[in-house]
Amino acid sequence: LAGTVLLALDLTGTFAFALNGALTALRATRLDIVGVVTLGMITALGGGTIRDVLLDSLPPATFVDGRYLAVAAAGGLIAFFSGRHLERINGTINVLDAAGLSLFAVTGALKGLDLGFGPAQAILVGAITGVGGGTIRDVLIRRVPSVLSSGLYAIPALIGAAATVAATGLGASGPAVTVGAAVLCFVIRMVGVHYDLNAPSPLAPPTPEPRDGD
Amino acid sequence: LAGTVLLALDLTGTFAFALNGALTALRATRLDIVGVVTLGMITALGGGTIRDVLLDSLPPATFVDGRYLAVAAAGGLIAFFSGRHLERINGTINVLDAAGLSLFAVTGALKGLDLGFGPAQAILVGAITGVGGGTIRDVLIRRVPSVLSSGLYAIPALIGAAATVAATGLGASGPAVTVGAAVLCFVIRMVGVHYDLNAPSPLAPPTPEPRDGD
Amino acid sequence: LAGTVLLALDLTGTFAFALNGALTALRATRLDIVGVVTLGMITALGGGTIRDVLLDSLPPATFVDGRYLAVAAAGGLIAFFSGRHLERINGTINVLDAAGLSLFAVTGALKGLDLGFGPAQAILVGAITGVGGGTIRDVLIRRVPSVLSSGLYAIPALIGAAATVAATGLGASGPAVTVGAAVLCFVIRMVGVHYDLNAPSPLAPPTPEPRDGD
Repeated sequence: LAGTVLLALDLTGTFAFALNGALTALRATRLDIVGVVTLGMITALGGGTIRDVLLDSLPPATFVDGRYLAVAAAGGLIAFFSGRHLERINGTINVLDAAGLSLFAVTGALKGLDLGFGPAQAILVGAITGVGGGTIRDVLIRRVPSVLSSGLYAIPALIGAAATVAATGLGASGPAVTVGAAVLCFVIRMVGVHYDLNAPSPLAPPTPEPRDGD
Repeated sequence: LAGTVLLALDLTGTFAFALNGALTALRATRLDIVGVVTLGMITALGGGTIRDVLLDSLPPATFVDGRYLAVAAAGGLIAFFSGRHLERINGTINVLDAAGLSLFAVTGALKGLDLGFGPAQAILVGAITGVGGGTIRDVLIRRVPSVLSSGLYAIPALIGAAATVAATGLGASGPAVTVGAAVLCFVIRMVGVHYDLNAPSPLAPPTPEPRDGD
Repeated sequence: LAGTVLLALDLTGTFAFALNGALTALRATRLDIVGVVTLGMITALGGGTIRDVLLDSLPPATFVDGRYLAVAAAGGLIAFFSGRHLERINGTINVLDAAGLSLFAVTGALKGLDLGFGPAQAILVGAITGVGGGTIRDVLIRRVPSVLSSGLYAIPALIGAAATVAATGLGASGPAVTVGAAVLCFVIRMVGVHYDLNAPSPLAPPTPEPRDGD
């Protein structure tokens, strides 16, 4: 039963990421149906793919399992066909996206631990599972990934992954750990959205170079 | 013999992708010899590399086989040294590029099937083999990949890969399948180029956000 | 002893890449702490990760070894907290970056040879180890990677990697080869910086297309 619940949650997160990712891409640039569906799928599946490369767990789990591919493609297609009408439920989509982030961070960290990696590596891949897909999408639509510049997105993912690793290190495991750590990540993310919080910015940034830094 | 013909076709596609990819990059931005040759090689070899990551078939076949590296580097070097003079044969290069797309889509799908993946995965990696390299190139020269926004490029690749998978599922195999599916992809691609066809665009796109979506 | 020296040099190069990479990113765009540290770590570890994918040596060595992660994160954090103050030691950082490039090119090529790859592949992965991380960073901050457009960065890396491969082919090995090839790369890089040398540009570039090439 716990496995079924986790799978249902994971597929829900995948769907929310694909829908939200495709809508974000549609707002940012001109795309055709190939672009919208591709970017939805990349947002949903890209983070897990980077995780599986780093953990040497290829082929990527979400590529082999056709249910993930189907759910991600469905999210992208729905965004393509009903883009504007979905704006009314933007709040719902943001909540689903935060749920996806939380689940991906926790299940990503658990996968790292399961495969025998250390705590730092497990926390990193947890966060990467959560934020990696949106980062690739932003690069493809030519935006500096928002996760690198503003908002509170990677930090809740890191906290959720760290809570997972800490609980596992203390001998706890099972659905209670998964759900608890995911709820922690989710709450921090939603508080950040509600109060428009940002991660700290540099106090004394170096002088900008308008062209050809390096 | 069939193997030799297939290899010759594959190397021709690699060369055409490298030449066309390097010329596209040269038109879009300022580059030195390192950039032109690198972008030619990435256009030619990038799609197959993503395919081999997803299929857990590392190291990538076209990285191990020095002939692919040499042919791709040659395409980039020719673009570097004779850029402007190649514009006269732009039509020829487009035809070669469509041939490369067709061959890569078909051979990519066949590789997915050979390694035991399902039909959806085989179709996806076929298309990715065809369009992946140009997508990475476009990201590196800071363009929204044209495959995501306009034209008819991914769709012929998907159809060619799907025809390959369908024929194999019906028990057909051998050069006739390869050539038939590749010709199907090629014809659709060239019809698209000739009549300037585009994949469908969203009917009701969401309101654009000029800055910082998400 | 030789192993310890090599490790110390490699960690120094990692630190220099992270520091320099994070500072370059800070100069080019607005980032928060997540962005600065992430881009520092990607600059330091990205090239080795691409190398390990191409060589099928996953999980990536610098991901498994926590010391590389720690040193790279430290470089990014220092850039975040003392950005402007580091401008005074810009010359030192450039020297450290050239040292990192040299070491990464040589150790990357050696790893390719150790795993049984041919000379062309070993030279390529050596250069990719040196320039790959900065290339991913530039893509994430929306710049055409400087390694593709100007300066003398990939060429010294290619020469250092080629010298490593040539010496190994002639039966030489050990610290003398490593240090000799790294010094060769380092000197060429610093001469290039000092005299502002560039790799050759195309003589007859094709007509630019301001929009939608392809």
